[in-house]
Amino acid sequence: MTRVVGVIGGGQLARMMTPPAINLGLEIYVLAKESSESAKIAVTALGDHTDTQALLNFARECDVVTFDHEHVPQSVLTELVAAGVNLQPKPEALLYAQDKLLMRKRLAELGVPIPGWAEVTTVAEVDAFVAEYGGRAVVKTARGGYDGKGVRVVSSGTEVADWFAALAQGEALLVEEFVSFTRELAQMIARRPSGEVALWPVVETMQANGVCAEVIAPAPSSAGKVADMAADIATTIAHGLDVTGVFAVEMFETTDDRILVNELAMRPHNSGHWSQDGSLTSQFEQHLRAVLDLPLGATAMVAQWAVMSNILGGPASGDLDAASAQLMAEYPEAKLHLYGKSPRPGRKIGHVNVIGDELDRAVAAARGATAFFQD
Amino acid sequence: MTRVVGVIGGGQLARMMTPPAINLGLEIYVLAKESSESAKIAVTALGDHTDTQALLNFARECDVVTFDHEHVPQSVLTELVAAGVNLQPKPEALLYAQDKLLMRKRLAELGVPIPGWAEVTTVAEVDAFVAEYGGRAVVKTARGGYDGKGVRVVSSGTEVADWFAALAQGEALLVEEFVSFTRELAQMIARRPSGEVALWPVVETMQANGVCAEVIAPAPSSAGKVADMAADIATTIAHGLDVTGVFAVEMFETTDDRILVNELAMRPHNSGHWSQDGSLTSQFEQHLRAVLDLPLGATAMVAQWAVMSNILGGPASGDLDAASAQLMAEYPEAKLHLYGKSPRPGRKIGHVNVIGDELDRAVAAARGATAFFQD
Repeated sequence: MTRVVGVIGGGQLARMMTPPAINLGLEIYVLAKESSESAKIAVTALGDHTDTQALLNFARECDVVTFDHEHVPQSVLTELVAAGVNLQPKPEALLYAQDKLLMRKRLAELGVPIPGWAEVTTVAEVDAFVAEYGGRAVVKTARGGYDGKGVRVVSSGTEVADWFAALAQGEALLVEEFVSFTRELAQMIARRPSGEVALWPVVETMQANGVCAEVIAPAPSSAGKVADMAADIATTIAHGLDVTGVFAVEMFETTDDRILVNELAMRPHNSGHWSQDGSLTSQFEQHLRAVLDLPLGATAMVAQWAVMSNILGGPASGDLDAASAQLMAEYPEAKLHLYGKSPRPGRKIGHVNVIGDELDRAVAAARGATAFFQD
Repeated sequence: MTRVVGVIGGGQLARMMTPPAINLGLEIYVLAKESSESAKIAVTALGDHTDTQALLNFARECDVVTFDHEHVPQSVLTELVAAGVNLQPKPEALLYAQDKLLMRKRLAELGVPIPGWAEVTTVAEVDAFVAEYGGRAVVKTARGGYDGKGVRVVSSGTEVADWFAALAQGEALLVEEFVSFTRELAQMIARRPSGEVALWPVVETMQANGVCAEVIAPAPSSAGKVADMAADIATTIAHGLDVTGVFAVEMFETTDDRILVNELAMRPHNSGHWSQDGSLTSQFEQHLRAVLDLPLGATAMVAQWAVMSNILGGPASGDLDAASAQLMAEYPEAKLHLYGKSPRPGRKIGHVNVIGDELDRAVAAARGATAFFQD
C-alpha cells in the first residue's frame, strides 16, 4: 500500500515536500485553508488548522500527519493523539517551538548553551535583568513571535509595559541577554521516531530586517570545533526533546567564542533550503523519510559550497515571468524555487540556490539571480 | 500570470515533469485517461489522446502543450495546430519519432550517419537486402514499435511474411543493416523554439530484453571524439527536424568506430533520468524551460559519474514499501524514483540514481539498490 503523508498547512514548506514525495512514490495530502495556497497541487482537504474535526477527518486518510507550520494549538494536537493519529513531531516536541519560555527552561535542563534569560512578569524584573546584563536586553513574548515579531531590544522595562499589560493570568515574558554575536548559525537535523539522526553541515544565516535573507553552507571556517559544537547541541536537543522529522536549531556564534541557541523551529526551515540542490538528500525528502520512520538519506554536499538567497517582495512590475526569464538567461546555473505566491513588499515568495566550488562566485550568482526580483 | 504547461498523457514522464514545475513556480496540467495514472497529482482532465475535442478543451487552459508520449495521431495534432494550440514539439518533428521510415529518409537527407537501410514491401526485397548485408538484417515496422516490439532480426524475408501480409495499401517495412556495435549510446539534447540548444554529456545505455536497464553518464571513455560526434549528430537533428523540448538520440558505437543513429525519442527519455540527480538541470526541468521558450539551464554534472538503474518488475511480494525501506537502509546515497505503478513482471516502475566520483562504486550501489525490488 502506498504510504500517505498528511501535511497540516498549505504553505511553501508543504509545497516543497511535494517533489520528494513524488520521487519516493509516496502520496502527499495537504490540508489548507484555501485551495489557492502555495501547496495547492497537493491540497486534498480544506479546513482551518484549529478545527479539531477537520483535522481528524483529514488524518483518517493518512499514515502519518506532519506540519507546514507550528500553529496548531496544543489542545487540538492532544485530541488528535488521543484519537490515535500518528503525529510527527509529537505535541510534546512542538510545544518547545510554540513557547519560548518552556524552550529556555528545557534547554537549560539539558545543559545546552543558551543566552542568560529570565521569566518576567513586571517592568521591575526587566529593569533588574537589564542592570545585571550590561544595560540592555531582549524581551520576547513566549508565544506568537515569528520573523522578528514579538521581539524587542530594550534598555528599560517600560519599553514593554504594553506587553505586560496584555498578559493573561499566569502568562509571562521572556527576557534574554543581548548577545554580542559575530554571526548567526543554523544546524539542520533529522530524527526518526526510532532514534536515528542525520545532520547537514552547520550553515551561516544572514538576516535582513529580521527575516532570513541568505544562507551559506557550510558556514565558512566552521570545520572542526564550531561544526562539532553545533552538531552536539542539535543532537542533544533532538533526543532530549524527542523531536521527529527535520528541524532547525538557530544559534549565535559570540564574540567570546561561544555557541548559544537562539531559536528552535520544529520543521523544515529556510536555513535548510540550500539542501534541495546542494545535498544528496534535501531537508524535504529527509523530513518525509523521518516522519515515516524510514532510514535517513545521506546528507553529503554535492559541491563544496551552496548558497541560498531569498526572494523577498518581488519585482515592482509584479511580473514574475519576466524576472524568471532574466534570471535563467543570466544565471543558467542558478536553481529557482518559486512558491506560487503573489509579490508583496517584504513577502517571501521564493529563493535561489547556487552550488559551486568557489564561494565568492556562488554568492555573487545567488545575489545576482535574486536581484531580478527585487528592483 | 503563472504559465501553464499542459502535458498530454499521464505516465511517468508527466509525473517527473511535476517536481520541476513546482520548483519553477509553473502550473502543470495533465490530460490522462484515468485519474489513477502515474502523474495523477497533476491530472486536471480526463480523456483519450486520440479525442480531438478533449485535447482542444484541455489545450484551451494551457500556454503550451507538450507530451508524455508520441502516440497522438498526426491528424489530431494537425487539428490542434489549426486551432491555434501552441504544441511543442510540433507535429512535423513528432512525425519522425512516429514513423521510422520517414525518420531514416530525413536523417539520410541531413547527412547524419545511420545504418544501411531500405524501404521494403516484399519478402524478396528483404532477401536481397540480407544478401547484400552479410546474411542478416533487422526488420522494423515503420510505426508502433517500442521497447523491442516491432523489431525482428532475420536472415530471410519469410520471417516477416506475417508483417507484410498485415501491411495496408501504401505501407512498407524498414529493413536495416544488423550493426555490430560495441555499445549503445544516447545523446540527450534540449532545443527552444527560438533556437538555443543545450546538451548533456553523451551516455552509455545498457538494455536487457530490449528494455533500457542501466545508464552511465558520461559514457566511459567518450571524452573527445565520441562526445563530439554524438553532440554534432544531435545538434544537426535538433535544428534539421526543428525539434523543440528535450529529446533523445539513441546511437550505436560500432566495432569499426562509427557512430550510427538508431532511434529518436521526441521527449524526455529513460536515457536522461540520471540528470534528475546528476546534473545542474534535469531533463524534466529543461523540457519545461524549452517548451516555454525560456533560457535553458546549465547541464554540467554535479559529480564525475551518474548511474541510473531501472526498477523492472518489482518484488515478488509486491511490497514496494519494504523494498524501499531496505534500499534506504543499505544505500543512503541512492536516489529512489518510483512511478506510482503496481509491480508486474517486466514493468518499468521506477529507477535509482547514484552519483559519485568512482564509477565502479556508483554502479555497484545503483545495482544493489535496485536489486531489492527484483527478487
